[in-house]
Amino acid sequence: MKIEPLEDRVVVEPLEAEEVTKGGIVLPDTAKERPQEGKVVAVGPGKMLETGERAKPAVKKGDTVVYAKYGGMEIEVDGKEYLILRESDILAVVE
Amino acid sequence: MKIEPLEDRVVVEPLEAEEVTKGGIVLPDTAKERPQEGKVVAVGPGKMLETGERAKPAVKKGDTVVYAKYGGMEIEVDGKEYLILRESDILAVVE
Amino acid sequence: MKIEPLEDRVVVEPLEAEEVTKGGIVLPDTAKERPQEGKVVAVGPGKMLETGERAKPAVKKGDTVVYAKYGGMEIEVDGKEYLILRESDILAVVE
Amino acid sequence: MKIEPLEDRVVVEPLEAEEVTKGGIVLPDTAKERPQEGKVVAVGPGKMLETGERAKPAVKKGDTVVYAKYGGMEIEVDGKEYLILRESDILAVVE
Amino acid sequence: MKIEPLEDRVVVEPLEAEEVTKGGIVLPDTAKERPQEGKVVAVGPGKMLETGERAKPAVKKGDTVVYAKYGGMEIEVDGKEYLILRESDILAVVE
Amino acid sequence: MKIEPLEDRVVVEPLEAEEVTKGGIVLPDTAKERPQEGKVVAVGPGKMLETGERAKPAVKKGDTVVYAKYGGMEIEVDGKEYLILRESDILAVVE
Amino acid sequence: MKIEPLEDRVVVEPLEAEEVTKGGIVLPDTAKERPQEGKVVAVGPGKMLETGERAKPAVKKGDTVVYAKYGGMEIEVDGKEYLILRESDILAVVE
Repeated sequence: MKIEPLEDRVVVEPLEAEEVTKGGIVLPDTAKERPQEGKVVAVGPGKMLETGERAKPAVKKGDTVVYAKYGGMEIEVDGKEYLILRESDILAVVE
Repeated sequence: MKIEPLEDRVVVEPLEAEEVTKGGIVLPDTAKERPQEGKVVAVGPGKMLETGERAKPAVKKGDTVVYAKYGGMEIEVDGKEYLILRESDILAVVE
Repeated sequence: MKIEPLEDRVVVEPLEAEEVTKGGIVLPDTAKERPQEGKVVAVGPGKMLETGERAKPAVKKGDTVVYAKYGGMEIEVDGKEYLILRESDILAVVE
Repeated sequence: MKIEPLEDRVVVEPLEAEEVTKGGIVLPDTAKERPQEGKVVAVGPGKMLETGERAKPAVKKGDTVVYAKYGGMEIEVDGKEYLILRESDILAVVE
Repeated sequence: MKIEPLEDRVVVEPLEAEEVTKGGIVLPDTAKERPQEGKVVAVGPGKMLETGERAKPAVKKGDTVVYAKYGGMEIEVDGKEYLILRESDILAVVE
Repeated sequence: MKIEPLEDRVVVEPLEAEEVTKGGIVLPDTAKERPQEGKVVAVGPGKMLETGERAKPAVKKGDTVVYAKYGGMEIEVDGKEYLILRESDILAVVE
Repeated sequence: MKIEPLEDRVVVEPLEAEEVTKGGIVLPDTAKERPQEGKVVAVGPGKMLETGERAKPAVKKGDTVVYAKYGGMEIEVDGKEYLILRESDILAVVE
């Protein structure tokens, strides 16, 4: 199943704690307000500006991102858990 | 009866749990904050921008969409239940 | 008495439950949050945009509309009950 | 004494219940949320738009208007009670 | 001491009840929500618009104005009480 | 140490009550909501407008200003107390 | 690991109390509402304006800044604590 987010929304696959540790970022389970790490799996066309044009998305499919979890909605696609967020909930791209 | 939504509103026919499962998305009845899946049956002319022009709608009749239920209003047309939402309550188009 | 709404306001004559049923939409009296059906009897010149121009109203006199009741104010003209709403409280035109 | 409202403000002389009845609109004293009827006695130059120009007022001196009372401030000029409101609190002009 | 308000701020000298009565407006001390009358003693350069230009102030030094008191801040200059308000808190100019 | 405020921020050195009295403004310590007097020691480049340009600051280094204290943040530089405020918290320049 | 903040976000490495003292700013641990000092380690591309262009960031990598802590989110990268803030939470650059 293919999922195409609208506007500036992004579908993110949360990274497991173990994978996260490899990347160098440690995010203890108890830290509620800490941002989380995930992989971008789908990106919307971008936010519409008042001019009617769309702002180019700042992330792309495959990017590893740090995001604020509270802004997203959980969705289960083909038995896997994803998060749909707005690009503004994504804090940074990590490499 | 024909229904023509105003502005960026969209009329959606909610998909039953069984149909949803076929599409690959499982949305347990108990998950209140989870987005839901539905079929677009009518689309408004689009949101008016400050320039006076309308933004082109991002969904079209027949699209299967995932939406946040809390933003919509229920309406019963010819004995069937529908939801009128704003396009901003639609998270993604699924295929 | 003639009534001319200002801005994007619309005067609506609420349709009785019986009339509604004929149109195919059933709106039980107990459903508080459900939109209601009515007939447009007067339309304002449209909302003023930041450019100083007015947005063309999306409904016209005689249209049957579905509206969210909570946004309007009740008014009694020549012994009859009407509702003055903003166009943004009108969800759809029905035919 | 002459009073010149600023911006999109309008000075309204509330109409007494008896006068109102003549006009066809009955506004029971107990109806708190109902709009009220009054006569426009002074009109400001209009709301300033972001362009620096002023929007032309939609009402003029002498108009009979229906307004939402909660938005206005009472003022007593030469022993008479008036209301200063913004044009956005005026719902309609009646004839 | 000279005082130059910033933006669309205005320095107003409140008029005493006795003076007010002469002007025709009676503002009982008990009326908390009633607007008050005062004399403009200093006017700022005007509110900056999004274009970077300033909106021309609608009042000038010497004007007698009616204002909503709650929006202002009291200041004592050379032993005298003044109020600094934004122009939007001034309802009308009286003559 | 040099401090360069960002945007429309201004660094102010609060004036002591004694100094204030000389300037003609008396600000009793008990008056919490009263604006306070201070000297501008550093000014940011100005607020960015939606056009991408910056609005020219309305105060300059050395100005004596009256400001609303609640909007600022206290900072101690080289053992001295300062306040960082936004220009919109400055009510007036006094001379 | 490299971290690239989005929009007008900035990654800051908080300065320890001792280092802070050297810089001349004393920030007692008990002062909750006081701004804090840190070093900029990464800067986003800048906030997108309504025109679709980005505002040039006002800080650069290596800058020592004073920031309001409450607006940021803590993140641990390679075992070190950082803060991701928006540029609007940065009050000033210190030298």
